[in-house]
Amino acid sequence: MVKAILFDVFGTTVDWRSSIIAELNRFGDENGLNADWSMMADMWRAGFRELQGRIARGERAWITMDQIHREVLDGMLRDLGATDLSEESVAHLNRAWHRLRPWPDTVEGLTLMKRHHIVGTLSNGNLSLLVSLAKYGGLPWDCVLSTGMFGTYKPNPEVYLGAVRMLDAEPGDVMMVAAHAYDVDGACEAGLRTAYVFRPDEFGPGKGEDPGDTSRFDIVTSSFTELAERLAE
Amino acid sequence: MVKAILFDVFGTTVDWRSSIIAELNRFGDENGLNADWSMMADMWRAGFRELQGRIARGERAWITMDQIHREVLDGMLRDLGATDLSEESVAHLNRAWHRLRPWPDTVEGLTLMKRHHIVGTLSNGNLSLLVSLAKYGGLPWDCVLSTGMFGTYKPNPEVYLGAVRMLDAEPGDVMMVAAHAYDVDGACEAGLRTAYVFRPDEFGPGKGEDPGDTSRFDIVTSSFTELAERLAE
Repeated sequence: MVKAILFDVFGTTVDWRSSIIAELNRFGDENGLNADWSMMADMWRAGFRELQGRIARGERAWITMDQIHREVLDGMLRDLGATDLSEESVAHLNRAWHRLRPWPDTVEGLTLMKRHHIVGTLSNGNLSLLVSLAKYGGLPWDCVLSTGMFGTYKPNPEVYLGAVRMLDAEPGDVMMVAAHAYDVDGACEAGLRTAYVFRPDEFGPGKGEDPGDTSRFDIVTSSFTELAERLAE
Repeated sequence: MVKAILFDVFGTTVDWRSSIIAELNRFGDENGLNADWSMMADMWRAGFRELQGRIARGERAWITMDQIHREVLDGMLRDLGATDLSEESVAHLNRAWHRLRPWPDTVEGLTLMKRHHIVGTLSNGNLSLLVSLAKYGGLPWDCVLSTGMFGTYKPNPEVYLGAVRMLDAEPGDVMMVAAHAYDVDGACEAGLRTAYVFRPDEFGPGKGEDPGDTSRFDIVTSSFTELAERLAE
């Protein structure tokens, strides 16, 4: 019996890419800037992943996801030659990551799972960012856990084991759900149960992650509603 | 403008006493035990407060609220001569603190405040206990913060400032709400805004805390719905 289900957020629970492209397009229009905004969205995310990895490996001091996004964004804007923007305008754009649409199955699936399980986040996002996303998208979390509470980033095992401890559970009582193999594998190595969710459009239409052989995951699914059904079996 | 409102839980948000008395009565009936269960409920709470205070002063290593409740309960049962109880039965009774009724105004008030503010706990309860209470009572928290995340108990200023940091806020953006002056005073000293809620029946009919002069609090109220109205003014 799974007591608690922890979800990755960016890519797994919310569709960051289409939301960020829309915000970048609006930003470009408002500031008279031209760029390939889809590519910029991907660069922004890739830049985040790169810097986050350096922090996880101890090569940089820990900063929040909001701070990483801002550092990457400032670099991108410099490269575009856009140096005369107001702080308010750039800060608002950086907060685009607080306004991401859930995938269509997310809210219904979480609501179903919440009936019989604790549903929470376990995300690299800072707490205030995760709370903003929950309010924006109506995500009915029972608790919002951030890797920042443990001072490191996924897939450091301390993140998964720390969340299990906070829930007064055993690793085998908790399931980690993500659309990214590195995250699900990290949880698996820490002894948690695992569900891999295919999000085939995360990186653009038809561009999802290829996790390779999925037989190592306890559940493999393509939506939160299907996951709810599988857990109710 | 208050960005986030943090609530004490035991006594402020939920009515622990009537719920605990009812569970103790049931426990007594099931196990053929006689006692003044109202007094036992008060002793249980007082024993918790005493042990929590020793931990907050560094005289004991940190343990969770669930663990404190169990230690106090075991002592009370020994004093009653009730030594042949099943572990299952005692563990279930200890989890009575996971099944506490909200005060009648709690859910409506939180739902109103949630529209314009982040509403969260800041409680000495461990996270899993707070999540249980939220599911049991339908408490619509945006986030569940526990002093356990900071390894100490209220009114240590690190608790209030740690919560403010997690919310990426300034102390003046966050309001602490409690029915206990020591807690509201602790928040005030850390620079937070404050609301004192009278709960005149917390320790029995007509037995609420006397906070003394209340002019030091930003808001003084007797219900969460009234607090919501005051914040909306």
